[in-house]
Formats: sequence, C-alpha cells, structure tokens
Amino acid sequence: MNTKFAIGIDLGGTNIKSGIVTDEGKIIRTNIIKTYSERGPEKVIQQIEKGIKILLKNNRLKIDGAGIGAPGSVTQREGIVKNPPNLPGWGEVPLKKILEGKIKKQVYVENDANAAAIGELMFGAGKQINSFIMITLGTGVGGGIIIEKKLYRGTTGAAGEIGHVTIDYKGKRCKCGSYGCIETYIGNSYLVEDVKKKLKKHKESVIYELIKGDYKLLTPKIIGEAAKKDDEFAKDIIRDAGKKLGFALSSVVNLLDIETIIIGGGVAGLGSLLFESVKNGVKDRVLQPLKGKIIIKHAKLKNQAGVKGASALVFYNL
Amino acid sequence: MNTKFAIGIDLGGTNIKSGIVTDEGKIIRTNIIKTYSERGPEKVIQQIEKGIKILLKNNRLKIDGAGIGAPGSVTQREGIVKNPPNLPGWGEVPLKKILEGKIKKQVYVENDANAAAIGELMFGAGKQINSFIMITLGTGVGGGIIIEKKLYRGTTGAAGEIGHVTIDYKGKRCKCGSYGCIETYIGNSYLVEDVKKKLKKHKESVIYELIKGDYKLLTPKIIGEAAKKDDEFAKDIIRDAGKKLGFALSSVVNLLDIETIIIGGGVAGLGSLLFESVKNGVKDRVLQPLKGKIIIKHAKLKNQAGVKGASALVFYNL
Repeated sequence: MNTKFAIGIDLGGTNIKSGIVTDEGKIIRTNIIKTYSERGPEKVIQQIEKGIKILLKNNRLKIDGAGIGAPGSVTQREGIVKNPPNLPGWGEVPLKKILEGKIKKQVYVENDANAAAIGELMFGAGKQINSFIMITLGTGVGGGIIIEKKLYRGTTGAAGEIGHVTIDYKGKRCKCGSYGCIETYIGNSYLVEDVKKKLKKHKESVIYELIKGDYKLLTPKIIGEAAKKDDEFAKDIIRDAGKKLGFALSSVVNLLDIETIIIGGGVAGLGSLLFESVKNGVKDRVLQPLKGKIIIKHAKLKNQAGVKGASALVFYNL
Repeated sequence: MNTKFAIGIDLGGTNIKSGIVTDEGKIIRTNIIKTYSERGPEKVIQQIEKGIKILLKNNRLKIDGAGIGAPGSVTQREGIVKNPPNLPGWGEVPLKKILEGKIKKQVYVENDANAAAIGELMFGAGKQINSFIMITLGTGVGGGIIIEKKLYRGTTGAAGEIGHVTIDYKGKRCKCGSYGCIETYIGNSYLVEDVKKKLKKHKESVIYELIKGDYKLLTPKIIGEAAKKDDEFAKDIIRDAGKKLGFALSSVVNLLDIETIIIGGGVAGLGSLLFESVKNGVKDRVLQPLKGKIIIKHAKLKNQAGVKGASALVFYNL
C-alpha cells in the first residue's frame, strides 16, 4: 500500500502550525510560525504560504493537497472563512480560492473545532467509534459532532457550537451576545476571571502562592497545579466548572442521543478531576435511558489534533 | 399512478386515534376509541386491535401495513416501546412483534413526536423543507429532528428530546429528574400550575373571570382566550413562555445549524403572540450568522399529525 501525504494547517490567532502528514496520521515534518493576526488577512495568508514553503523545502514527497482548520464559521464547499473571532479584519475571506491560486494544489478548509473532531475520528480517540461529540476546551469552547463516521455540518456549515449551549438564560453575558452559554463558565478567559474574583476571599489557596499574588499570572494550568497539590479551593473550581459542562452536555445528549463525548484542548489539562465532574454532571441530568451509557474520553492527539485533522480533509471525504 | 393505503395510529394516554391514510396523506376513514391506559399494556393493545378492526370493517382497500406513533422511547427497528410516560405498567413492550402477530401485516413503530415530525415532512408544513426542527407542545414538549428529509434518530432511537434541553440549571425540577428543562416552563401542566400561582395576585385578569374563580378549570386554551381579549396578564404569560422556548431553541439551533422550526400541538393554539415571542427569543440569543435566517412555522396537520405521520412510516423509508 502506498503511503499518501498531505499538508495540515492549524490556523490560530497567535501561531500557524503546519505539518506534512501521512494518510495514517503520522507527522513527517512540522513547523510553527507567527500569525501576525493584527496585520489583517493578507499578511496572515502570506504567513500560511510561508509555512507551506518551509515544509516543502527540499521535499520530494508527492503532496495530495492542503487542509486548513480555521477559527470562525466556515462554508466548507466554498472554503470561505467568516468572522473568525481571533483574526481581526477578516470579515469573509475565500481562503480556499486564494490559497489554491498561490500553491497550485487542492485546498480544503474547515472550522478548527470540526478539524479537531475529524482528527480524533481518523487518527485518535474516535477511531473505533461511529458517533461522538468532540469538545475542544480553550479560550473558547469548540465543538464538533460526528454522526456515523461523518462530520455533521448543518445547513450552513456552522453546526456543533456546543460552547454556545446555554445553561442559564439569566447567566453572564457571553461574547456571542447571549447569556449563560457554557463558554462563560469554562472558557479559558471566563474561568480565569471568575477565579481571580473568588481568590480575593481565598488567599489561603495554593493558587495565590503559585502566582505570588500577581493575578496576571493566573492560568488554567496554575489552577490545575494547585488542585494536584490538593488545594480545596482549586478543586472546587474545577469540580464546579466540570459539572456545569456536564449540565450543558446533558442537553446536547438528550437532543442528539450520542453516547460518547471526547474532550480535548488546553483546559482539559485540568486532569481527571475535571473529567470525573463532567461525567457526574451528565449522569445527574441526562434522561433516564441514557444515564448508564455516557462515556467521556480524553482526546488523544493533544496539540496535534488541528494539523492532523486538517490533513485528513485531503485524504478522506468527511 | 395507483394510490396506496396504510393504517396510521396515534397512541395516546387517553385516546387511540386510527385512520386509513393514502400515500398522499389523505385520510379516508378514521375513528377514536378510549385507551384504557390504567388497565395495562395487554388491554391497550386489545384496544389498538379493536380500532384497526373498526377501520377495516367492510373495507376492500389493499392495506400495505400499519404505523404507530407511541409515547416514550422507541427502538425503531425492533419496534419496542420503552417507559411511555402516560401508559402505566408498560416498561418495555415489543409492540411491533405483538401487533404483527395479531393483524398479519407489517407494523412500524415510532415515537409520537417523531411521527408528528414525519407527518409534517411528508404531508404538512415541512414538505418543501430539507431540514427542520419540529416541536410538539402538549402535556410534555416533544421534538423531532429532520435532517435532509430524514428523521434523525440518534444511536438508540431516543434523539430529539427538545423538551429536556435546559435553560436554567438551577431551575424547577422536571419530571425527568433534571432541572430547568424547557418543558418545566411551557409544558401544559407546568404552565397551568405556574399561572395558578401567579393568578392569586392578578385577580383583575380576564382569566379569573373565565374560570369563575375555579382554578381547576384553568387550561392553556383559557389563557389563550384571555390574551385574545387583550388581557395583559395572559399576554405576559404567553410572551414569557414563548421567549423561553426561544432561548432553548437558540441552544438547539447553535448546535444543529437548522434554520426552520415548526411548532405544533395544543399549546401552540396560544396563537401568533406565542409564535412572535418564540421568534424574538431565538433572535435575541442565537449566534450572529444565524440571526436573520430563523423561520418559525405553524404545523399544518393539527391533531391529524400523529395518524398521518404514523401512516407515512409504512409508505416511506424515513
């Protein structure tokens, strides 16, 4: 069997990760360059091209095409990226068409959370699973829905926005304009803001020690570290966030009747306490016939999910 | 073109509606008999058989089979009905197998809210629409999801439980065991209970007059009547319930990226004020790219949705 090769690109607001990936999900080469997102779409696309050029330098492999996981809403057939939250000035950019003109190869564009779901489906924790819900925890809360080994895209390609499932219609205002979206509880920045506030009354917490009183140093990673040191305050924070994610997932599971949930991304590093709490939250709230069936799995591809998933767009009709 | 005929059965906790229906959704004959649900599954199945016998009396039409819309969770391939809320003593009943033995025809069983969605898809408000979300407002809040002209059933056949999408994780306890499900705001009995409580402080309301002070007479229909008489209290109740249904639907639409919502069932009789409020609720909360696109439609088949949808199971592979 001949191995095939494709380029996978994970376009983020800070960095662009690119890699040459085989059709079995092995990364051959990789590089990371700055996005320079503040300089607008033209510069960012130049950077993508630069990343590809570095990858292909002195390369004799036959490359079948390039796949890109991009933030924002993506109309997948046309490869148009719409209003990516961390790429200022984009509006609507026909990324597929522009890049195909530049690199003379077939280009596939997909929303980044969807690309991560595809990565797990083809090469990761979802390989043996027909249908699953993928959550990517990070600055935002991304989601991807896999039904019968295919990505469910919805009518306009915008499906899977699990981060904007509400758990409290009177809750905190979300960047999206709604209130009480699960992202406002477990999205990186919201979580950190919340802990900052509460920390003022919990100066006994190991967190306070770890950041040496400097609130700017607070990250989910620090919260996770404190929890590992058995800090009750940090553990409560993680339990509470996990449980709430579980509540949101109950609504999702009641609607979709999909039993497996795969969780990846940065905040997922909060460890087994987070996963246990998510599981408890779902079990507490989901409809009776589904209660015993829910499986929560760790994503496998870690920070390579984006690059690998994007490359899979080239190989497979998903 | 030869017209085909099937039996459609709408199995409810109070009545069993049966009809002979053509493959174009025309009802030829119909009858309603009591369910006698309190006497357990055997008696109820006898009643279903009786309904069918009445239909087929002096009938010379060739009947292709029978379809049944049943409450509870239904495993569609095997036709097993699980824990229907308004049919005590059922547990799990292999309705398909039992009825096929009795009537010697192919029998198809589906959840009642799903059957209503199929009815609207084939013969009603969803005929020209590829994908839509169907809500049936009644004692409970039922849901059905149509994707690309097919019913989305999920892994175990339990998908579409829109009634148990939460809008407030700290909300009222729902019969399902969770909290703040949309059913606890707009389900018939919850809505009536809520109005009863509030009415004590609003004796100026036309509702109070219509029920002549007897709270037992309160129904959603009465609330609707009062609203038509421009009663501000009644109008507020409807606006509030509609808006909250809109909030729940925002989560659903953000997840599924399906733009059309069809609303049917008893409470939907609350009129255009309800529909306007649902629409406002969704528009308020749904993600930006979907805001302008949401269409809320009235179901067309009214109280025939169950019978017609059930018959469609016989004709079409949905």
